[in-house]
Amino acid sequence: MSITLTSLYEILPKKCDSKADLWQSHFVTLKDVLTKNGFEKLTSSSQQQNGHPGQDEVVTECYCHHKNGRTILVTCCKDSMMLDLNERTQPSRLSEYNECAEQLQTDLYKALRDYNINRVPTIRRGEKIWQYSECGDGRIAENNFTELLFDKTSEYQRVTIGYTKTYGKILLLDWVENLAESDDSYTTSLCGIDRGVTYQDKSVLILGGGDGAALHCLRKLNPRMITMIEIDEMVLNACRTHLRSCCGDSLDKYEGENYKIIVGDCIKYLEEYAREGRKFDYVISDITDVPIETNEKNNQEIKESWLSGAGWKFFKQVFNYSLKLVETDGIIMTHITASLNVDGIKRFEVGINNLDEEVDYEMFDEFVPSFCEKWMFCHIKKRTAQK
Amino acid sequence: MSITLTSLYEILPKKCDSKADLWQSHFVTLKDVLTKNGFEKLTSSSQQQNGHPGQDEVVTECYCHHKNGRTILVTCCKDSMMLDLNERTQPSRLSEYNECAEQLQTDLYKALRDYNINRVPTIRRGEKIWQYSECGDGRIAENNFTELLFDKTSEYQRVTIGYTKTYGKILLLDWVENLAESDDSYTTSLCGIDRGVTYQDKSVLILGGGDGAALHCLRKLNPRMITMIEIDEMVLNACRTHLRSCCGDSLDKYEGENYKIIVGDCIKYLEEYAREGRKFDYVISDITDVPIETNEKNNQEIKESWLSGAGWKFFKQVFNYSLKLVETDGIIMTHITASLNVDGIKRFEVGINNLDEEVDYEMFDEFVPSFCEKWMFCHIKKRTAQK
Repeated sequence: MSITLTSLYEILPKKCDSKADLWQSHFVTLKDVLTKNGFEKLTSSSQQQNGHPGQDEVVTECYCHHKNGRTILVTCCKDSMMLDLNERTQPSRLSEYNECAEQLQTDLYKALRDYNINRVPTIRRGEKIWQYSECGDGRIAENNFTELLFDKTSEYQRVTIGYTKTYGKILLLDWVENLAESDDSYTTSLCGIDRGVTYQDKSVLILGGGDGAALHCLRKLNPRMITMIEIDEMVLNACRTHLRSCCGDSLDKYEGENYKIIVGDCIKYLEEYAREGRKFDYVISDITDVPIETNEKNNQEIKESWLSGAGWKFFKQVFNYSLKLVETDGIIMTHITASLNVDGIKRFEVGINNLDEEVDYEMFDEFVPSFCEKWMFCHIKKRTAQK
Repeated sequence: MSITLTSLYEILPKKCDSKADLWQSHFVTLKDVLTKNGFEKLTSSSQQQNGHPGQDEVVTECYCHHKNGRTILVTCCKDSMMLDLNERTQPSRLSEYNECAEQLQTDLYKALRDYNINRVPTIRRGEKIWQYSECGDGRIAENNFTELLFDKTSEYQRVTIGYTKTYGKILLLDWVENLAESDDSYTTSLCGIDRGVTYQDKSVLILGGGDGAALHCLRKLNPRMITMIEIDEMVLNACRTHLRSCCGDSLDKYEGENYKIIVGDCIKYLEEYAREGRKFDYVISDITDVPIETNEKNNQEIKESWLSGAGWKFFKQVFNYSLKLVETDGIIMTHITASLNVDGIKRFEVGINNLDEEVDYEMFDEFVPSFCEKWMFCHIKKRTAQK
């Protein structure tokens, strides 16, 4: 198996008052550095940048290492120089590649003292497990999966559990991170435990929550009864086997002294409970970011527009039913999205301000290790509760 | 100001039993997708990969978007296809670029159903603040600095404090992350607070620790006396002003009821204290990863070899003196390195097993949010303490 290793460099003047054509004068220096590092020039081209009239000339040069197929693409403008180093090689040769990339940076730094020389750590493509994901504000995060413990596609979604060196085991649904062994903070924030919510003798409805972490955490707090409704039995099975440090023994059987797990579509049960006039002290919505609809057409729409359009229609339904089911002074708890997904949070706020009943809500964020970012949570109460 | 935006894609068969020349048959499909997305072929070349005799033919094609100067470099082999999308543009056009990159991925996914299509989130180069750093195992981590609050070069190092949306303010020394407002776990682990170390009536010597976080944390635990020795007054000044949520008022004056801050070289004071026969209950080494030597020649050597060679000589000195200063049942506490920097940890272990006195030690790791990884800590005791 071959992988493609890439490092991206930037060379920028330390001060921004540099003159045009400054880079022209450094071509020779750059070429010396590249030659010293074993690279030979293959091609060179100069052009006005396409489609950007008035922009400066851009010079592109391609260099190739004569020994190992490493290439460098150099793009120079008057105010910046970008280097793209690539090599297709065996994973075992990564350290050799890294040494070369490091050496190149050191040599550039020595030769171009008036410039900031930065390098993006090596990106790897072509490996068995994809390690990159995107945070709520577009930042890149790299994982270190060493093994996929479970990877099957259910009726609803792709269910994956992988082991990472940094976060322990992680549950991914459609390859989106849901919960890792490192992520206690997610569960305690979702359930408001750090915010003084107590569970003694309370009745709780968990929507989703198939990883079992919330259920397991709350069972220890002496609630009267927890009912959990998870649509995807494959998630329960996978977590029971591979994510026991999160769910403990709580998924071993579907009914215990003070809890019950129902495998089914929560919308159907919310409807039924509302009709029956059932009440809960707390409703905890731990539905995935990309909620599942059993109607295939709707499901596609939802997947395409999270927390907006069809997506929000689903959440609106969940929250309106939850308002019917929750006691007057009860709380609906939910996670929202990444705290830096500003648009998503705005859409959520517009949404909960337009539910069937007037509500008050409190939003707060908490850092979740495996997400590499702060996640937003919300506790919703009926406005009548305050009157 | 222009930035260079880069997305790196990989296209791999879902199953590994794909035949050679498979990719040849998908060139047409790929070209259709690229054409639909506004790209035109510029150049094409085919070659045996240089320096890798026996490896398969590699075809490289370069495409250019006729409207906005976006380019795609396509590299095809029999078992993988890599796409490098680049655009030099204004930061304000990032979302337009991201939409294009996203659309391309969707179209590739639709056209090549039997393949996994992955994309590295957009990398940005040419911006005012460099956002990328490398974890102990080579993983990339991206920050979201919006502002540099302090950025000056002292006699010893570059001292930077920046504000990030995710981790709050971060102190960087020579552009290496030292402590962020999110990183309580670093301080409580370093000082063993989560591990039952108590400070009531104890005497403490802190080496380094210029951010003031350990000092401020320990002052609240009623120690008899804390002495802190920090070499770089610029760090103290910068943190006093910009990192108050970590250091509180502890750096406002250099002497208080139960603490004293000395600006100086800790080696000199360790020597002096040892000569005087002074004793402490705890010595906490919070020296930066790249320790400072006042001797310029040694300093260069140390910077070039962390925890090995000249670098370790420095640490050995610190630990040997600390062993002289610590009470028989006292503890020397230190941070080590990233928990996935396996070589660094091995070198550390060899080092402390070869100190002047025999020691027992305990190592443990803790996730530090702004580092995006687990960090390793060590508590060292004299072996005689157990006898």
